[in-house]
Amino acid sequence: MVYVSRKEHFNAAHKLSNPAWSKEKNQEVFGPCANENWHGHNFELIVTVAGDPDPDTGFVIDLKKLSTLIRADVIEKVDHKNLNLDVDFMHGKMASTENLAIEIWKILVPAIPRIGSRARLHSVRLFETPRNYVEYFGE
Amino acid sequence: MVYVSRKEHFNAAHKLSNPAWSKEKNQEVFGPCANENWHGHNFELIVTVAGDPDPDTGFVIDLKKLSTLIRADVIEKVDHKNLNLDVDFMHGKMASTENLAIEIWKILVPAIPRIGSRARLHSVRLFETPRNYVEYFGE
Amino acid sequence: MVYVSRKEHFNAAHKLSNPAWSKEKNQEVFGPCANENWHGHNFELIVTVAGDPDPDTGFVIDLKKLSTLIRADVIEKVDHKNLNLDVDFMHGKMASTENLAIEIWKILVPAIPRIGSRARLHSVRLFETPRNYVEYFGE
Amino acid sequence: MVYVSRKEHFNAAHKLSNPAWSKEKNQEVFGPCANENWHGHNFELIVTVAGDPDPDTGFVIDLKKLSTLIRADVIEKVDHKNLNLDVDFMHGKMASTENLAIEIWKILVPAIPRIGSRARLHSVRLFETPRNYVEYFGE
Amino acid sequence: MVYVSRKEHFNAAHKLSNPAWSKEKNQEVFGPCANENWHGHNFELIVTVAGDPDPDTGFVIDLKKLSTLIRADVIEKVDHKNLNLDVDFMHGKMASTENLAIEIWKILVPAIPRIGSRARLHSVRLFETPRNYVEYFGE
Amino acid sequence: MVYVSRKEHFNAAHKLSNPAWSKEKNQEVFGPCANENWHGHNFELIVTVAGDPDPDTGFVIDLKKLSTLIRADVIEKVDHKNLNLDVDFMHGKMASTENLAIEIWKILVPAIPRIGSRARLHSVRLFETPRNYVEYFGE
Repeated sequence: MVYVSRKEHFNAAHKLSNPAWSKEKNQEVFGPCANENWHGHNFELIVTVAGDPDPDTGFVIDLKKLSTLIRADVIEKVDHKNLNLDVDFMHGKMASTENLAIEIWKILVPAIPRIGSRARLHSVRLFETPRNYVEYFGE
Repeated sequence: MVYVSRKEHFNAAHKLSNPAWSKEKNQEVFGPCANENWHGHNFELIVTVAGDPDPDTGFVIDLKKLSTLIRADVIEKVDHKNLNLDVDFMHGKMASTENLAIEIWKILVPAIPRIGSRARLHSVRLFETPRNYVEYFGE
Repeated sequence: MVYVSRKEHFNAAHKLSNPAWSKEKNQEVFGPCANENWHGHNFELIVTVAGDPDPDTGFVIDLKKLSTLIRADVIEKVDHKNLNLDVDFMHGKMASTENLAIEIWKILVPAIPRIGSRARLHSVRLFETPRNYVEYFGE
Repeated sequence: MVYVSRKEHFNAAHKLSNPAWSKEKNQEVFGPCANENWHGHNFELIVTVAGDPDPDTGFVIDLKKLSTLIRADVIEKVDHKNLNLDVDFMHGKMASTENLAIEIWKILVPAIPRIGSRARLHSVRLFETPRNYVEYFGE
Repeated sequence: MVYVSRKEHFNAAHKLSNPAWSKEKNQEVFGPCANENWHGHNFELIVTVAGDPDPDTGFVIDLKKLSTLIRADVIEKVDHKNLNLDVDFMHGKMASTENLAIEIWKILVPAIPRIGSRARLHSVRLFETPRNYVEYFGE
Repeated sequence: MVYVSRKEHFNAAHKLSNPAWSKEKNQEVFGPCANENWHGHNFELIVTVAGDPDPDTGFVIDLKKLSTLIRADVIEKVDHKNLNLDVDFMHGKMASTENLAIEIWKILVPAIPRIGSRARLHSVRLFETPRNYVEYFGE
């Protein structure tokens, strides 16, 4: 079992604001992250898959196919977008990095085996800033 | 003459959109950067000052004072903000990295000598992403 | 279960020297790290907590509170300090990165639940240099 | 149990080409990585060992000895080399990053205890580019 | 005048070998860089252009066009290639980073104004490794 | 004229303290940097030389020779050392990054032409932390 990782990036706007709460409570809980006019980040997304290398190729997965998949199914939907307004899979959820990583996991977990029969999704790591990041393993 | 640099960071939303143009022309020229619902970045700002070190301190400038100045006069105004809507010194200007660097220069050039009599502003370098950045030297 | 990480940094001096050993044995075992006049590093500390995101906030833990906690309970005690002489929780221990990570774990493990009831400490990762680092998971 | 990591680097040429396949099939499967005239990378190798710190030194392992071992037993054999032609332990295997990590594991797993009796090899992480990397844990 | 930079990357094989010299002299002068079976690098290329921002766009140059140009005219010719064998503009020249930067300058200097009438090429910076890089300003 | 840079690193302890001042004044001016028990950093040193590439080698300077020179004449004297106590060329000077860069310049400026007749020293850049650095051009 070898773990193979691919890093992609995207830029997006978001805000943290619970619609069930008052403006004051949102500012108290989320501080500047609740700014009504939005803020944004350069996100770095690291997708890790696990599997046995194919003896014919030496690959657990074809990294060009993995990159193409991540770009088509994830990056295309979030890059230069507003995570609260533009991204269908985030509707009705708080636009936190935690929730975004979980939703990206849900998208990728069934898609990985379609491009690489020896591979399964192991983790989704998402950097919101160089100092803040989350990781999700599906459980 | 020694050149001394301090790096600070901030997160902001923006869009590139010329209000004199149609929506179609903005999308044609700016592509995804014209997204009406905004996008955003982790900006890295590097401020460089130049001067002779003070024999008593070995300093061209006190970097704690320089950091405090940049945070008070620049970061406070742009961090977790919308560059188009929330930042007074960007009103009426395209929210490009080029223009943002020029405006940061204008703020800092008179302020630097007030915190360090031996120092003058040399350059403002601004990273919009790890792959795109601008630098301005005041002329 | 999502794993959320926050990176903080500090600068410190230290030396590696076992007081039960002769100067010669210390130099033989620790080489330049035993320099009696000390040396130092820019340490990078990555604290990872694990938990279920709160549906109201999308957060496993409030990263501003986590940053404030790490700065108050750890960084304040080690930044611009001598790890052998100035840091109470390192007294009587070799000032290795391994031991420092273990002691930081002991400080943070009871403190994390006080700032985030859904979170528990998962790991402490400590970079002594960009090429040397340790990680401790509490067992 | 503390996990201690050391990062080393090397530069090498390689190509991905299965000798049992036609030139066309190799190009179809491996694309530009099959270039007959080779391409190359700056590899970054992170070796992680695990163990209890020695109370006398505070060390799980002496990192200078670990660095010396990695350089002698791995880096010396791959640095400024052609992974397909020059590296004995890669003969008969596809020159993928997956296979290279597995072979480096096999070299280091018996060698680590000889330089540090408290330590065992935990993982080999190998970056082929800043965006593509693999990790192997020996099982 | 604002300086705008774009970073692109490529992977390539090369060797340093003067065909007018004996094998022994090449090994003496170039050491492991003369390995007959090649070695390689992940190159990072930073192209800097200078100009006045356009008031209508805020841009010195459209960075998407600059990226497209660099990829079409430079990266396409060197990525996953052998710098000595596959790259027409390096024929007859030593495959050093210095010479590669000069040749990239010659390609880009007439091409930049065709994609951005306000911009001229200022410099080409080329990283062969994270610790070795060159920069060329055209004179 | 091509500019060629080599990055080396070292770890050192220091403090900022003017012996002509009282303890109170030193603490007022230098804050935690005046800690009597020292603190320290991982310094990164970037040395840039300029010259015309040699047609026979493609080199402005042999980077292995440059690295060897920097290690012998600079790194050896400061690595794992106390900049205030152990480094002869810093005696009688404030141990600021500015002064350290100037002294490194003085060491290297006559030494560079001895290892590369086409090259002259262009600049010394010294990172004290990833956020604070200085650069000196000899004038």
